[in-house]
Amino acid sequence: MNPLYAQMPTTIFEKMSGLARETGAINLGQGFPDSNGPADVIEAAQRALVEQSNQYPPMAGLHVLRQAVADHYRRHQGIDLDWQSEVTVTSGATEALAAAILALVTPGNEVVLIQPMYDAYLPLVLRAGGVPKLVRLEPPEWRLTEEALAAAFSDRTTVAILNNPLNPTATMFADTELALLARFAVKHDAVVISDEVWEHVVFDGRAHNPIMAFPGMRERTVKIGSGGKIFSLTGWKVGWMCAAPELTHALARAHQYLTFTTPPNLQAAVAHGLGKDDAYFTAMCADFARSRDRLAAGLEAAGWAMLPSAGTYFLSIDLAASGIPIDDVSFCGRLVREAGVAAIPVSAFYAEAPVTSVVRLCFAKIDATIDAGIERMARAR
Amino acid sequence: MNPLYAQMPTTIFEKMSGLARETGAINLGQGFPDSNGPADVIEAAQRALVEQSNQYPPMAGLHVLRQAVADHYRRHQGIDLDWQSEVTVTSGATEALAAAILALVTPGNEVVLIQPMYDAYLPLVLRAGGVPKLVRLEPPEWRLTEEALAAAFSDRTTVAILNNPLNPTATMFADTELALLARFAVKHDAVVISDEVWEHVVFDGRAHNPIMAFPGMRERTVKIGSGGKIFSLTGWKVGWMCAAPELTHALARAHQYLTFTTPPNLQAAVAHGLGKDDAYFTAMCADFARSRDRLAAGLEAAGWAMLPSAGTYFLSIDLAASGIPIDDVSFCGRLVREAGVAAIPVSAFYAEAPVTSVVRLCFAKIDATIDAGIERMARAR
Ligand SMILES: CSCCC(=O)C(=O)O
Ligand SMILES: CSCCC(=O)C(=O)O
Repeated sequence: MNPLYAQMPTTIFEKMSGLARETGAINLGQGFPDSNGPADVIEAAQRALVEQSNQYPPMAGLHVLRQAVADHYRRHQGIDLDWQSEVTVTSGATEALAAAILALVTPGNEVVLIQPMYDAYLPLVLRAGGVPKLVRLEPPEWRLTEEALAAAFSDRTTVAILNNPLNPTATMFADTELALLARFAVKHDAVVISDEVWEHVVFDGRAHNPIMAFPGMRERTVKIGSGGKIFSLTGWKVGWMCAAPELTHALARAHQYLTFTTPPNLQAAVAHGLGKDDAYFTAMCADFARSRDRLAAGLEAAGWAMLPSAGTYFLSIDLAASGIPIDDVSFCGRLVREAGVAAIPVSAFYAEAPVTSVVRLCFAKIDATIDAGIERMARAR
Repeated sequence: MNPLYAQMPTTIFEKMSGLARETGAINLGQGFPDSNGPADVIEAAQRALVEQSNQYPPMAGLHVLRQAVADHYRRHQGIDLDWQSEVTVTSGATEALAAAILALVTPGNEVVLIQPMYDAYLPLVLRAGGVPKLVRLEPPEWRLTEEALAAAFSDRTTVAILNNPLNPTATMFADTELALLARFAVKHDAVVISDEVWEHVVFDGRAHNPIMAFPGMRERTVKIGSGGKIFSLTGWKVGWMCAAPELTHALARAHQYLTFTTPPNLQAAVAHGLGKDDAYFTAMCADFARSRDRLAAGLEAAGWAMLPSAGTYFLSIDLAASGIPIDDVSFCGRLVREAGVAAIPVSAFYAEAPVTSVVRLCFAKIDATIDAGIERMARAR
């Protein structure tokens, strides 16, 4: 048995969702909405089940979805992608991450990781034989500095992994930070695997800024997206990776031996969804922002100190500033057992020197769930 | 870029299906039926899209599917599995293979592979850092011998990969061969990853024989199955891996960072399908056997020398015995371009010392497709 997996625990998301199921707690942990996604997209999936083939689609994805992804990014982010040589459909963004890391990391390569980081990154980098070089962000600003990048990048760096918007901090990297990272990537001839699954969930008129559009990055970025996150259908597991043709060649080879392909009816439905107009996406973000504001206002009124949220489904509590002098893991354990609310300790996103005073909550819930969460959290102080 | 993927070609299946699409050839290459799977299973998937959550299901799979898998194997193969600690749902059998190999192989471990082998095995073993030890089977019997196993197993063997029924040869291993492999696995304390995706597609009254049921194998087998193959819905990508709890722990950890989970509506539909009665599976096999016999009879009448098929969707032509003195790759290239039939060269299933005189055809097609294939193949002699 590979020692990496023998002792590894289940993901923090699965663990907290399991606890929520067992205890009947309100689940503000794992990032999924309790609505069920747009009806027309679900109907498109139903139709495709009978109107289209259920056999193997092309390994790189249905043409219609690959084209829809390219069109979507052209329209929304001004990125020009050739759907045939630059877009590969995957079984969710997690598979895209796995394929990209397995394709691009050779044992001994150094990989720059920015903490807090999504929990899949480090195990995948280690399984690929990569040597992690950690950059640490801190609350409340979570900013990337030149010093931190200079300490992490070296001549052995082959890959850096970026998550923007950033889960769990709910921040977006500023242009200056992205330009800085781009400069390091170019200087060290590294590829940036850019996990942009939250690209559409951004608030208050902000626009997502893809690192692929920065100088020198067009040829050295793997841009990862997620239909499940864009359409609040997190179980569908339809993702994609976009990259220049030479990179895509290697990515597709890794993908072909991880899942080979992705259910065609769900691909067709996501392609349908990507064609939605600006008004749809604007309304979706406004809805999420309303939920964010509802949860933030309620918790603030109850005396909790909140950190701001610029995007994602998440909002964080600053435990120290809230006058709660215990660490996030102990707090989340108590919270689920005693108050009946599942949340995620942000220290779970660190491999070393964790920030232990921040707790993440998911606000992508109906009002009744949010209100019940607020009420329970008010009693937990 | 990892050198393993930089130069790797696309899979032979994808390549031949692509050629078939481009040239309008009849596709008897990639293994998928041209029917569309049982209507009630497809309807169950449609219903689940609106009646159940489309958000993340549990990471190890929907309870209903894990239970259905355990019940199914108890009923059909007399294997007793605890669904909670021994069954993990994956996004197709390919993902199960990837998860099992990444979880069980540590760099430097030796892995016994039986040629001809499914094309995903070797790249996954190499990416995991495993050292392949190849066992070579030969036509027309494709039998596993004690000598060959003795030469491949060593004290560094940690995993052996079995595919039974065997694609592309369409043979099933005899009890004596499975007992032999089990003996070597036990002696060398190795785990057998047993790819049994064809377990339900067996003909002429044969019964599938799971290696997990052999002495000493219950605790050292990873049994991999596929809903897509069982129900002729190859695009659905719903698979699973069954193994003793300690193995399952590691397998699930690898799975959680490859895809995390699998679309819940397709899981629910496959669970529904696994409850079908014996009559369904008997009729399904009889249907495939009828197609096999139709293709075999037609090609034999046209002068082709055929090898027998005991299971799978496949049938092979012996080129040498058919009086065609060219290798399988050249033959398949000509066949698709000049005769308009896509087939798979069996040498693609060898990493070294390939058998080059056998060509695989998929007979899981409607009669009109089979007849058109026969007609075109008759002219190709
Ligand atoms: C794959 S489960 C995790 C979902 C998610 O993005 C999160 O909660 O951070
Ligand atoms: C994943 S494509 C290959 C399908 C198959 O099992 C085969 O053709 O052998």
